[in-house]
Order: sequence, then C-alpha cells, then structure tokens
Amino acid sequence: MNIREDAREIICEAIKAVLPESSTKEALDGIESQGAIRIIAIGKAAWRMAWAARESLQNRISGGIVITKYQHSQGDITGFEIIEAGHPIPDNNTIRATMRAIRMVEDIKSKDLLLFLVSGGGSSLFELPDGKVTLEELITITDQLVKSGASISEINAVRKHLSQVKGGRFAEMVRPARIFTLALSDVLGDRPDTIASGPTFPDSTTCEEALAVIKKYQIVISSEALDALKRETPKHLDNVTTKIIGNLSLACKAAAQTAENLGYNTTIATTTLDCEAREAGAFLSAVAREIISRDRPLPKPCAIIAGGETIVHVKGKGLGGRNQELALSAARGIEGLNNIIIASAATDGTDGPTDAAGGIVDGESIKRMKEQGYNAEDMLRNNDAYRALEAAGDLLKTGPTGTNVNDLTILLCR
Amino acid sequence: MNIREDAREIICEAIKAVLPESSTKEALDGIESQGAIRIIAIGKAAWRMAWAARESLQNRISGGIVITKYQHSQGDITGFEIIEAGHPIPDNNTIRATMRAIRMVEDIKSKDLLLFLVSGGGSSLFELPDGKVTLEELITITDQLVKSGASISEINAVRKHLSQVKGGRFAEMVRPARIFTLALSDVLGDRPDTIASGPTFPDSTTCEEALAVIKKYQIVISSEALDALKRETPKHLDNVTTKIIGNLSLACKAAAQTAENLGYNTTIATTTLDCEAREAGAFLSAVAREIISRDRPLPKPCAIIAGGETIVHVKGKGLGGRNQELALSAARGIEGLNNIIIASAATDGTDGPTDAAGGIVDGESIKRMKEQGYNAEDMLRNNDAYRALEAAGDLLKTGPTGTNVNDLTILLCR
Repeated sequence: MNIREDAREIICEAIKAVLPESSTKEALDGIESQGAIRIIAIGKAAWRMAWAARESLQNRISGGIVITKYQHSQGDITGFEIIEAGHPIPDNNTIRATMRAIRMVEDIKSKDLLLFLVSGGGSSLFELPDGKVTLEELITITDQLVKSGASISEINAVRKHLSQVKGGRFAEMVRPARIFTLALSDVLGDRPDTIASGPTFPDSTTCEEALAVIKKYQIVISSEALDALKRETPKHLDNVTTKIIGNLSLACKAAAQTAENLGYNTTIATTTLDCEAREAGAFLSAVAREIISRDRPLPKPCAIIAGGETIVHVKGKGLGGRNQELALSAARGIEGLNNIIIASAATDGTDGPTDAAGGIVDGESIKRMKEQGYNAEDMLRNNDAYRALEAAGDLLKTGPTGTNVNDLTILLCR
Repeated sequence: MNIREDAREIICEAIKAVLPESSTKEALDGIESQGAIRIIAIGKAAWRMAWAARESLQNRISGGIVITKYQHSQGDITGFEIIEAGHPIPDNNTIRATMRAIRMVEDIKSKDLLLFLVSGGGSSLFELPDGKVTLEELITITDQLVKSGASISEINAVRKHLSQVKGGRFAEMVRPARIFTLALSDVLGDRPDTIASGPTFPDSTTCEEALAVIKKYQIVISSEALDALKRETPKHLDNVTTKIIGNLSLACKAAAQTAENLGYNTTIATTTLDCEAREAGAFLSAVAREIISRDRPLPKPCAIIAGGETIVHVKGKGLGGRNQELALSAARGIEGLNNIIIASAATDGTDGPTDAAGGIVDGESIKRMKEQGYNAEDMLRNNDAYRALEAAGDLLKTGPTGTNVNDLTILLCR
C-alpha cells in the first residue's frame, strides 16, 4: 500500500468507528417504558440511528419520524415517516417536518417515552421560528453569522433563542412524558446543549449572550427577531435523560489504532482543534517539515491525528469547505517534500457546500495544480479550494457517511 | 520551582545556548590570512560576535566596525568603531555606519581577509539605498510590506534590489579580497542569502520576484525605486565562504534538554512555524487541552517546544509583537485550566516595537486581565497584546539578549 492509500484507510476506519448503529443498539439494550415508545430522529445520522432503534425495539415502537438531510435517507423503515430537508440552510421541508414531529408528541401520555435520536446537522433540520420571525429572516441571520466567522456555539446561542424547538424548548412540549436522548456529538467538548442546538437539553446560553453575539458581529436583525431573542430558554428540565453515544475522540482513537496497525508511530495531537482552517494547515505542515528533516516530534514512519472544527472566514466567492482549505494550505507548506500526506475530512462526508468530504495533499499537489493552471495562493484567497484540489486529483470523496462527529485531520510521513 | 519558573528557565537556557561568543571563537580557531584581517559585524548580536572575534584574533585585527541596534552595544572593543543605529526601521545612523563600513573596505588588498559577522536585524542596520531611492522611501516601502503581512523573505526580495549593499552587492565591493562570513541565523531554514538580506551571499531572489511582491501587496512606489528594482543582484560570488554558527534549531534543542532535565516529557514539534501568530496560539492551546484532559500527545508532565517566526497582519492600533499575540491568543484557549503554561519569546529579547521579549500565560491570565478591565478578544482585535499581558503580569522581559535566532514557543503541562 502507498501512503495515500494508508491515509484513506485511516480516515475510512475512523468514520466506521463512529457509525451509530451498534452504539445506538447498545444504548437501547434493556430500555423500559410503561407506555408507548415514540421516536424522533434528527440530523445527518438520523436514518441510521432510527434504523438501529427499530432493529432493537421492533414492534414496541408506536410511531417514528426521521428528519435528515437530502440524499441522507437510505429507504423506508417500518413504522417511520421519513422526511428529508435543508442543510446547512433550513427550508420549507424543515418547517413541515418539525411541525409533524410536534404533532406526534402533542398527544403523548405521561407514561410514554420519547426516544430522541440527535446528531449533527439537526440545527438546520429541526426548526420552527419563534413568534413572528420568518424562516427567511432566520436564514439571513444565520448566513450573516456564518460569513462573519462566528463560532458554532455563538451561532447556536442566537438560533436557540429564535426557535420554538431548540434550547430545550422541544422537551418542554413533551413534558410530562419522559425523553431519552441519544446524541452523536459533532460538537467539540460534547456539550449536549450544543449538539443540534439541544432541543431536549437545558440551554446554557442566555438572552444576554445571544444579544451580545448579534452586536459583536453587527448582524442586521428585525425588531420581531430582537423581541424573540429576549425570551429566555429553559434552564432546567426534569423529564430528560441524555447519553452521548459517539464523538470525535472515538473517531480519533480509531484513526490512531488504524495508523498503528499500518506501522506508523502515532499520536493524537488534539481533539478540539478550533483555529483558522488554513492556519491549522500551515501549522501541521511546519510539523511535517520537522519530521522530514529531523525525524521529530515522532520518528518516521509516523502519523499525527487531530480532530476538531476549524474556522473559515469567507471572503472570496469560490467553492470549498474548511477541510479543503486546510488541505490546500498544507499543500503549500509541504511543497516539494516526499513521502508525506496531509488529509482532512468531514466525518459526515460533506465539507462545506460541496460533494467532497475534504482534501488529501502531498508534496506534489502544488505542482499538479500549477500544471492545470491553478495558483494555490490565489485559490485560497478566493476560498476556492475545491477547484484547486479537484485539478490536482486531491479531493477526498466518501459520499454521505451516515454519521457526523466533525472533522478529522491526519498527517502521515514515511 | 513552579511551572512558570520552569518556563522562564527553559527559555533562558535556550537563549544562552545561542549566545554567539563560543561559536564565534570556535569558527575562528586556526583561521589564516596572508594579509590583514578586517572585521565588520552587523545585527543584534554584532557586539558579542565582534567581542569574541577580538578575543580570538587579538592584534591580528587591523580594523573593525560594529553596527548594532540602539542599546545593544555593551561598551568599547579595542580597535573597533561601534555605531548604534535604527531597528526595525533604518535611520541616518544606519546610512552613516554603512558608509563607514564601505570606506573601510575601499582600500582592502586582495590578500587581506574581511571577517563579516552577521546576525538578524542586519537588514535594517546595514543599508544604503540604491541609485536615486531615498531612505524615506525605503522606510515607507518596508512599512507597507510589514503591515500588509508580507513574509520576511518577500520583504527581503524587495529590499535587496533597492540596496547598494544587500543581496551580495557588498561582497562585490570587497572583491578581490576574500570574505569569511559567520552567520547567526534568524531565518527559518537558515538560507544565508536571507540572513540580514545576505550582503555577502549570492542572491537567490530576482528582479522579477521583487516586482511581483510589489504588485501582490499593492505597494506604493516611486519610478526611481521601480528602476532600482529592475537592476539585478549578483547570482554568483567567488570570494566568500559562509558558515552558520547558530540557529533556532540549536535553541530548540537546548530548550528541550532543559525541559527534560526539569522532568518534563519533551518533544520539539517544529522549528519552522510560520503561520499566523494568534492561530499558532489557538493550535497550541488545543493541544494543551488534550494533554490536560486525556494525557496525550504526551503524558504529563510534558513540554512541547516550537520554534519559528509567526506572522501578524496588523489591523489595529495597539502595541504588541508576534510572540505577545501568540501568548494572548493561547490564553483564551487555556482559560480556566490548571498547571499549564504557554510562553512565546523573541530570542533577541525584543518582540515587535516593545520592551518585552514576549508573553507567558496560564489558565488564569484571562481572569487577571478581566480584573484589570481588559477583554482579551478586544485587545487581540486591536493588536494590543502588550497592554493586556502587562495587566495580567504576563509579559516576558529579558532585555536585549545579544543574540537573535528568531522565536521560541513552549507549552508546559504538569
């Protein structure tokens, strides 16, 4: 196997380790309910989690709904309604699906159990704006926040206060019935109130914080939305139990194990990488140069694994995602070096608004781009990593993976 | 000893390891010349290098000149003229000193030897503009380049072509006499033509590249300067021998050795870190969090050493330097954690236009800043790290160290 194939295998094995089937089944083993069990599954991994729940609970389920991203459903599941909706931007199907979910819990009895299966992407897939706020404005506000470089937790502080279902508000609708939430975490640090904006978890953000984010990034907002931001989310919920069934740390461990099995000296540098994508690429390539020239921090052959969610401040008009930006930036830093790979991938298979999971670059990537007429620096400046990586044959494509625990970056040297 | 004192000791020992005295003496051991030996020493370490040369060669020296930064001379050296001049911005003393140096070599005989002792800072301290370019314009061009975030090698490509002495041109003046250049490298990768803009080394940059930098960063420039940029620098020199006597790698090794002696599991992550200063801080704090929570990539107690030259894109009006920005950014990333230090220092003792070498932060730095009324994020946005770190008691001050091998960053966890 060559080093590029090794990188692909490491990433594939890491994703496999966080597919939600087995962990969902395990969590539901021995679950009891005096009444009926209903299931709502939201997020990019919703279909797989619902499928596993159906396998576990069979006919004990009295009704279910799956809300996932377009092209993320894999067929019918007995007893479930399956709706695909917009991500990363909520659309009319998001609203329709969320209203269906609310209707499903309207007549839930106090002895019943709601199984809430939540995964990343749920913020956009499970949404109903509060009060007089329109979906259009919600989208505009989110768009402004994303483009201004607000962190995901800052974005969620705002979105929770603009929503009827986020920030624990959905759990209030279900009360007094109990909720058992299984969460596949795509959030660094795994705080349950931030996964899919925490529809069933007490909100740790406040009106004050949401308003501060609006001010900090100078977001344009209507008086109706401003009113909504002033209504506080629940800070305590007594009807919910939450369990994290998978996260980035697990994916990193699997990546490290695979790398070791392939013979690489391996370490996990971090599971909470949150700096600028292109600078993370520059930092890792500085480490790569050290390995190549001085056999440290690890002796060759070696693998350095990093998990996280880097940031892109979009200034250009190109196509890309944070993993692709990281990879393109790293390509500059390792130009001309041999026996080296830097790869970065979204574990959900979708990096930014593209059909690629990320990028995988080596010491000749820049040369290949040049041969196709692309200058890496210009492409980075225009946030156009996709086309540069595509030209070099360096896009990493997996298709939707059915899971989502955020991003995985690996550096391999031989 | 506490962890903060450990950090200080590690940085001090690293700097000690690259003080130029012993390496200069070693390099001059057994040096022969049929004729006279003259010495020109430029840069932040010029005084110490000249002093060591005088110790070695004694009365064999027939004349010498030291050109160093203000406050960097440490007294008289027999037989040497000592001139202090402007850094990072050249001034009239720079011009005067450089003209003195040129006069000193005007009558040098072909059998004589010029000992050229060069260290970082020399670009600003050894300068005479070419043709009709004024010192004022040279300063304006450099200022524009620095503020636009141009890399040091890009800046030097331009400066070399605007200069009578840089880019190997000084060596041409000395020909046919031989030159023995001892260089203390402050340049990542130690390329001799980039150390102090390489007055005695064939220039690897071209007119074309210099003109491209001007275009890339949209630098305002006169037609006289544009003409100068079109005159090519020497690409071959037959009268020069160059020896690197110290560099960042040596400092990193000494830091690692000291950390190990203090009981830390230690690694050198890179010696060529060149990303944005604040993002390097964010990356390192992501690694720090991993060490604290999961005892990896190294088990506690541990030290991670990184050497480099990070970049700051100045947008604010505050006071600071790249090491201080890195430290302030890192402080945000380790807020609330215990038993952790991130410190970053310029080995010359001067970070940016400040009297500090850098910053040294811990998990309570942000809290201390808040208590003094400073918000770290606002201070970073305004490139005002100095005041924030000062308020927290987190400035690292060494005074001028007499050496200069670029920046050292360390992460300590216990």
